Amino acid sequence: MTESKPLVGVIGGVGPLATAYFLDKVVRLTRAERDQDHVDLVVFNHASIPDRTDFLVGRSSENPGPVMADDARRLEAFGADFLVLPCNTAHTFTEEIQRAATVPLVSIVAETIAEARRRVPGLARAAVLATTGTLRSGVYHRALEAQGVEPLSPTEADQELVMRVIYEQVKAGRPVDLPLLEGVVERLVGAGAQVVLLGCTELSVVAADFDLLADPRYVDSLDVLARRTIERAGAAVRADRAPLSDRSTSG
Amino acid sequence: MTESKPLVGVIGGVGPLATAYFLDKVVRLTRAERDQDHVDLVVFNHASIPDRTDFLVGRSSENPGPVMADDARRLEAFGADFLVLPCNTAHTFTEEIQRAATVPLVSIVAETIAEARRRVPGLARAAVLATTGTLRSGVYHRALEAQGVEPLSPTEADQELVMRVIYEQVKAGRPVDLPLLEGVVERLVGAGAQVVLLGCTELSVVAADFDLLADPRYVDSLDVLARRTIERAGAAVRADRAPLSDRSTSG
Repeated sequence: MTESKPLVGVIGGVGPLATAYFLDKVVRLTRAERDQDHVDLVVFNHASIPDRTDFLVGRSSENPGPVMADDARRLEAFGADFLVLPCNTAHTFTEEIQRAATVPLVSIVAETIAEARRRVPGLARAAVLATTGTLRSGVYHRALEAQGVEPLSPTEADQELVMRVIYEQVKAGRPVDLPLLEGVVERLVGAGAQVVLLGCTELSVVAADFDLLADPRYVDSLDVLARRTIERAGAAVRADRAPLSDRSTSG
Repeated sequence: MTESKPLVGVIGGVGPLATAYFLDKVVRLTRAERDQDHVDLVVFNHASIPDRTDFLVGRSSENPGPVMADDARRLEAFGADFLVLPCNTAHTFTEEIQRAATVPLVSIVAETIAEARRRVPGLARAAVLATTGTLRSGVYHRALEAQGVEPLSPTEADQELVMRVIYEQVKAGRPVDLPLLEGVVERLVGAGAQVVLLGCTELSVVAADFDLLADPRYVDSLDVLARRTIERAGAAVRADRAPLSDRSTSG
C-alpha cells in the first residue's frame, strides 16, 4: 500500500469548469512517469453551492459560506490532509471555511500575491482582474495593501466588460471576446500596473485557451495554486511546461 | 438549499489524466446557463491505486481491487448516490467494487456496447482497442458475445503498438503518434469491424485531441459514460456539442 501520500481536498464547483480545469492543471503540471507519481486528490465538484457574487453584491440572501464550510468538514472526514479552494471570489469566506476544518486551507490569494512579488522584486502596483464580488469583498486589495503594494481595479465601465466575459461567455460556454479583455488590461497597464493578477478562475481558463501566460505580466491565480498544491502534496512540478521564468520547484 | 440533486461518486485516479478529462467532459457536455445547473460530483482522484494492468498480466502481486472497493465505500459514505469508474481496465474489478457499496455502479462497458448497438442496428462485429490487461480480462469480449456480437482484437504486433501509445505516450505526457494508431484501426476495419470501441480512457484523450469522434465508427467509452452520468444525475446533455448522430437525451 502507498497510502502515506498527503491527500488534497478540493472545495470545488465554484465554478464547475474552473474546478475541472484545476484538476487537469494539477495532473498535467505534475512530473510523472506513471500514474502512481501523481497527486492524490478528492475533488468535491459541488455545483449546487449558491452563487458567491449574487450573495456578496446583495442580489441573493442564499449564503454560500455555510455550505462551503460543511464541504470542508466533509472533505476532512474523507481524509483530506489539506484543503484548497480554486476560486478567488469564494475566498471571501476563507475564515468561515477554515474554522470548520482542523486541516489547513491553502490560500489562492496569498500564494498569488507571493508569486507576483517573486516575479517583480519591489512590486509597487498590481492590477486585479476579478468578479465584482471579489473586488467589493476586498480580499486582494487588503492583502496587497498589507504588503505595501497599491491595488488597481478596472474603471466601472471596464469592470462591466470583465463581468460580461466571465458570466456571459466563459460560464455560459460561449466564445470569448479576447480583444475586449485585452483592452481592459492595456488601460490598467497604462495606469501603472506592473502585473495583472488573474483573480478569477474563469479568467484562468481564458488565459490557458489563448496562451496569455506567455506574457509574464499575467500572474494566474489558478496556475499558481496548482503548482503549490503539487509541491505541498509531495510531488514534483514539471520543469518543461513551467511558463514562469526563473523558478524550478521553489515554494 | 438545493441538495436534492443526486451526487455522483467517481472512483478515479485510474489514470489521473483520464479522470481529469472525464470531469472536464461531464462539465462541458452539460447544458447549463449557470453553475447551479451543473452536476454535483465527488471525484476521488486516487493516483496511488496499484497498476491494474501490472496485476492483471501477473507483473505485480499488488491487487488494486480491494483499494477500489474501499474507495467505493468511502465515496458512498461521503454521500454519493451512484458510482462511476471512468476506466475500462479497472472494470475487471466491477463485482468486487459493487459488493463493497450499496449504491449502484454504472458500467462503462455495458453503456458503451449499448451505444454501439444503438448506432449500428444489427451490429455483428466490433473491434476493441484497449490495454492488454483489459483484453485479457475479457470484459468487453464476454459482454459483446453475450449479445451476439463478435469481438475483434488487434493482432499481437498491433496490440504492442496500442500499448506503446497508451503507456509511452499518453500516460507519460509525450506526443502521440496518431498514424501508428490509425494503421491498427484500418487493419481492424479491413477484418470486418463495423465499429471500433475505444475501451481505454487514454485512447479517449487521444480521440478528443485529434477529433476522432467526427468519424462515427469510433464509439468512445469515456464520452458515452460522461453522457450517461449527466442524464442519470438529472441534468441535460448539450445538444450543440453532441458528436453522436440521431440522439438527443435518450437513455
